[in-house]
Amino acid sequence: MDTAALSPSPSPASGAEHARVLTLACTNRKGIVHAVTGALLGVEADITESQQYDSPDTGDFFMRVEFVTPATREDIEQALAPVREEFGMRMGLWDAAQRMRTLVMCSKDGHTLNDLLFQQRAGTLPIEIPVVVSNHLDLQPLASFYGVPFIHVPVSKDPSSRDSKEAAEDRLRDLIAQFDIELVVLARYMQILSDELCRDLAGMAINIHHSFLPSFKGARPYHQAHERGVKLIGATAHYVTADLDEGPIIAQSVQPVTHAQTAADFVARGRDVEGSTLAQAVRWHAQHRVLADGRRTVVFS
Amino acid sequence: MDTAALSPSPSPASGAEHARVLTLACTNRKGIVHAVTGALLGVEADITESQQYDSPDTGDFFMRVEFVTPATREDIEQALAPVREEFGMRMGLWDAAQRMRTLVMCSKDGHTLNDLLFQQRAGTLPIEIPVVVSNHLDLQPLASFYGVPFIHVPVSKDPSSRDSKEAAEDRLRDLIAQFDIELVVLARYMQILSDELCRDLAGMAINIHHSFLPSFKGARPYHQAHERGVKLIGATAHYVTADLDEGPIIAQSVQPVTHAQTAADFVARGRDVEGSTLAQAVRWHAQHRVLADGRRTVVFS
Amino acid sequence: MDTAALSPSPSPASGAEHARVLTLACTNRKGIVHAVTGALLGVEADITESQQYDSPDTGDFFMRVEFVTPATREDIEQALAPVREEFGMRMGLWDAAQRMRTLVMCSKDGHTLNDLLFQQRAGTLPIEIPVVVSNHLDLQPLASFYGVPFIHVPVSKDPSSRDSKEAAEDRLRDLIAQFDIELVVLARYMQILSDELCRDLAGMAINIHHSFLPSFKGARPYHQAHERGVKLIGATAHYVTADLDEGPIIAQSVQPVTHAQTAADFVARGRDVEGSTLAQAVRWHAQHRVLADGRRTVVFS
Amino acid sequence: MDTAALSPSPSPASGAEHARVLTLACTNRKGIVHAVTGALLGVEADITESQQYDSPDTGDFFMRVEFVTPATREDIEQALAPVREEFGMRMGLWDAAQRMRTLVMCSKDGHTLNDLLFQQRAGTLPIEIPVVVSNHLDLQPLASFYGVPFIHVPVSKDPSSRDSKEAAEDRLRDLIAQFDIELVVLARYMQILSDELCRDLAGMAINIHHSFLPSFKGARPYHQAHERGVKLIGATAHYVTADLDEGPIIAQSVQPVTHAQTAADFVARGRDVEGSTLAQAVRWHAQHRVLADGRRTVVFS
Repeated sequence: MDTAALSPSPSPASGAEHARVLTLACTNRKGIVHAVTGALLGVEADITESQQYDSPDTGDFFMRVEFVTPATREDIEQALAPVREEFGMRMGLWDAAQRMRTLVMCSKDGHTLNDLLFQQRAGTLPIEIPVVVSNHLDLQPLASFYGVPFIHVPVSKDPSSRDSKEAAEDRLRDLIAQFDIELVVLARYMQILSDELCRDLAGMAINIHHSFLPSFKGARPYHQAHERGVKLIGATAHYVTADLDEGPIIAQSVQPVTHAQTAADFVARGRDVEGSTLAQAVRWHAQHRVLADGRRTVVFS
Repeated sequence: MDTAALSPSPSPASGAEHARVLTLACTNRKGIVHAVTGALLGVEADITESQQYDSPDTGDFFMRVEFVTPATREDIEQALAPVREEFGMRMGLWDAAQRMRTLVMCSKDGHTLNDLLFQQRAGTLPIEIPVVVSNHLDLQPLASFYGVPFIHVPVSKDPSSRDSKEAAEDRLRDLIAQFDIELVVLARYMQILSDELCRDLAGMAINIHHSFLPSFKGARPYHQAHERGVKLIGATAHYVTADLDEGPIIAQSVQPVTHAQTAADFVARGRDVEGSTLAQAVRWHAQHRVLADGRRTVVFS
Repeated sequence: MDTAALSPSPSPASGAEHARVLTLACTNRKGIVHAVTGALLGVEADITESQQYDSPDTGDFFMRVEFVTPATREDIEQALAPVREEFGMRMGLWDAAQRMRTLVMCSKDGHTLNDLLFQQRAGTLPIEIPVVVSNHLDLQPLASFYGVPFIHVPVSKDPSSRDSKEAAEDRLRDLIAQFDIELVVLARYMQILSDELCRDLAGMAINIHHSFLPSFKGARPYHQAHERGVKLIGATAHYVTADLDEGPIIAQSVQPVTHAQTAADFVARGRDVEGSTLAQAVRWHAQHRVLADGRRTVVFS
Repeated sequence: MDTAALSPSPSPASGAEHARVLTLACTNRKGIVHAVTGALLGVEADITESQQYDSPDTGDFFMRVEFVTPATREDIEQALAPVREEFGMRMGLWDAAQRMRTLVMCSKDGHTLNDLLFQQRAGTLPIEIPVVVSNHLDLQPLASFYGVPFIHVPVSKDPSSRDSKEAAEDRLRDLIAQFDIELVVLARYMQILSDELCRDLAGMAINIHHSFLPSFKGARPYHQAHERGVKLIGATAHYVTADLDEGPIIAQSVQPVTHAQTAADFVARGRDVEGSTLAQAVRWHAQHRVLADGRRTVVFS
């Protein structure tokens, strides 16, 4: 969330009104909001949305502000610099209209990919998808229909293969750099990322877990759930961390099921939940509404 | 929401830290948050929760702030007075720990009354209930069990009766004054209030409507819903206005139903939804989380 | 639901085990289930699923049975004929594996069409879509991607035009006949069908209503809902009848919304609900799980 | 589910129409429904509701039938006897109007007890509660208000105490016998039952688990959930087995939560979910709608 790392967009010409999003986090103490709003007043900002949260667990303060101002990005950063320094803030500043550049990874199951591509095209997801990456070829036609480049990065179990996991992850890093990627979405990508890659993607990669965390970890979770006779199944969208399926949770939802549904029905019903839960998490993240609070997330939805 | 009208509680002694809630509404313009937080800094307030909303429909700005301060109520009011005047704010200031004095009206169906009494006793509803009023005697034992005075105010259809609706409403006004009532809850009270009383209680009376508004208005809504074969039934908690069942909505919820359920099943299922929806609305209102925005409500939940 | 009208599929060769669906409705009296199961035993049927409902409102009895048998369709019909006659049953008999031939009508909004096409391709909807019909050209590429013929049937307001509503409906009738259509789905088709066409399509056309019926009928329902400040929005899938938006309800669902969402947000959120609700209704109908009970439906889900 | 074990009610006088519930389970094969409905026809039964399920996992068949007949219980049993023998059925036969005799166990938290007592009194739960048992005295006034005997059975950790767990469980067995108890409900009873007692109560004791199984087992589950930042919390009602919290699931539900809610808020919200989920499970069980299918339940809701 450091400003320096988040300036891919050229500043709009001074003079035009421009919508911006500011996020910040720091140790809580008196006077933060007054200081921030004072700095924003100094650049004639008109605040259109503002949310804040004071975490009793970590003692940290979190804030997200949307505002309109004729000032340039540089002017805003300069106005906020003293506040940032005084409170030791991590701070992010974005152009609200700019779509987040998102790389989607998938394998064979196209449900969540289809949801993301369709919603992005329909304008209901504030992202652009410059590239889709997969370890299989099955979903190439779907990407092609939406005019999105599809890159096949096979993954072999043989570490000496030129398609080894290590080589595949190197390829992925290259693609992230080449396409100026801000967000990686694992849309039912069926490979486990290395701990090192997980750490490198911390806070910028979202996974959809095919179960209601922390229930039924491991293989074939819907079959486990069916065997146990659950009456609800669900999905969890979370940030990727090295600790598999234990990353900070962004969104969860469930659907009722009955004894009369088979494990295959659970899988089909689960797919719907996964698709909508992942899209919701991506939407919130792309609007800079999700801030990390230790192992938890603050979601200014 | 005028401060003057809302000062029933004696100020706590100066020096002790005290939790407060401030709500405000005014025409939106730049600098409101900066001005309010500046005034609060002046009384050494530590903000623990803050929410705001800028209504694009009415052009109004709404804010709710919880804070802790050693200052007295008078000091806080004095600090806020210039801001209040500058922006033409409607403003409310409350002691966060004080339970809202609530009069509950009921008839024969005790489900929602039971929910309110139990939750109030269990401490999960921030209200106290100094009196229950009913046009029937059926629920007297329930009120008595919780040690709450129960006042029988019968209502006759005969306007010349000494139990006429007019007389009953006069009695109600007296009770509201006598018990320093801040909130009136119609918990399945089966009498229609006069337009004049509705106006007098504007913003301080909550009704639970036995249907998902604006569906199926009028008599026997569950039977109408059943006849129509709906697959969901619901309840709506709203402020009382002269325009019957059209007051600003505070909370709504639904439950699924099937063809195999009878109209009586709909009623039973509906009661559960009514009870939890009404309790939710009362909780939000009693925490000063609900602000009026024309025909709509802003709910800082 | 008459067998005669529902025999488009050739009978499978005798000898192979074959899954069948039987639906029936008649005035309720003793002995129906015993008689039906006796007839099925006579053709060595192994019942895998069976549901029944005895409507207290209409006095009618409804039943749906899935079974496996080596008998031919003709043998089954012959075995059931005496029972059918004795109880005056309306009866339907289908090959459970056969996908229902579905014509989808749309205009410019592709969300629900995309859901139907994707799910049909993925195998989670038991339909095939031999043709898509639209009064606009916008969604032709989407249909083409799925390899489905797209037929443009423009509708003019001028009754003397060769694209008049009457001419368009004649064209639609031709397409229904030409493609052996069993189900017509109005997937956000923005033209009102004539009363005559509604009657002709009774029980074989499903519409998705962009609101939680009977709330907010008429134009721009999400804007009406927003203005009223509702806290839930929803969608209703129902059979098409001449009485606009009053046809028997098949499925309904809702999503929570808040004051902070705009009417445009309501529309976007509503689209998701519409898509999943319509797909659910189509799935149930295509599996012969929906039977008409006067103005209501019996859904053997 | 053996008939012999389930005949506490005297047979109604022959001649009067009487509503009955029949449940049965056996290995699946052809002809079961035909045989059962034939036997019921023989006693002039008019079937009002019937559900069946053929479990692909266990190969078992389950059925529940509600019917009205002038025949006596003995006549019905005699008519069903040959069918029962032929198919090797476990069978249960009940008077539909008879309320299930339910012993409720609790400790200090009265929320779920209050829900059960109120709903039982209101007639929305088909049970009667002849006795409440608790290891604490806190909830005695609540039981007394509803006129239900309250028996204090303290539990000491000292195995040589006269209030040892063993002694307490002996006392409980006596009460179950003395009050002809058919169902034991653990309504937030905070003692773990011995394996032996769990086995003895198999299929006739329901527990509410304060978490969404199998999530967050062990102590302070809401605090675990809060620390993990979940976005949904839930409750699971299940049969008691020796394998703690792993008994067959009857009902589950969830409620959304946010980052802004504290662990205490989670507890309060969780209580609501627990109360409604437990009441739902008790209702289904008391109507004989829940049948055991290995580790799972069949719920004919």
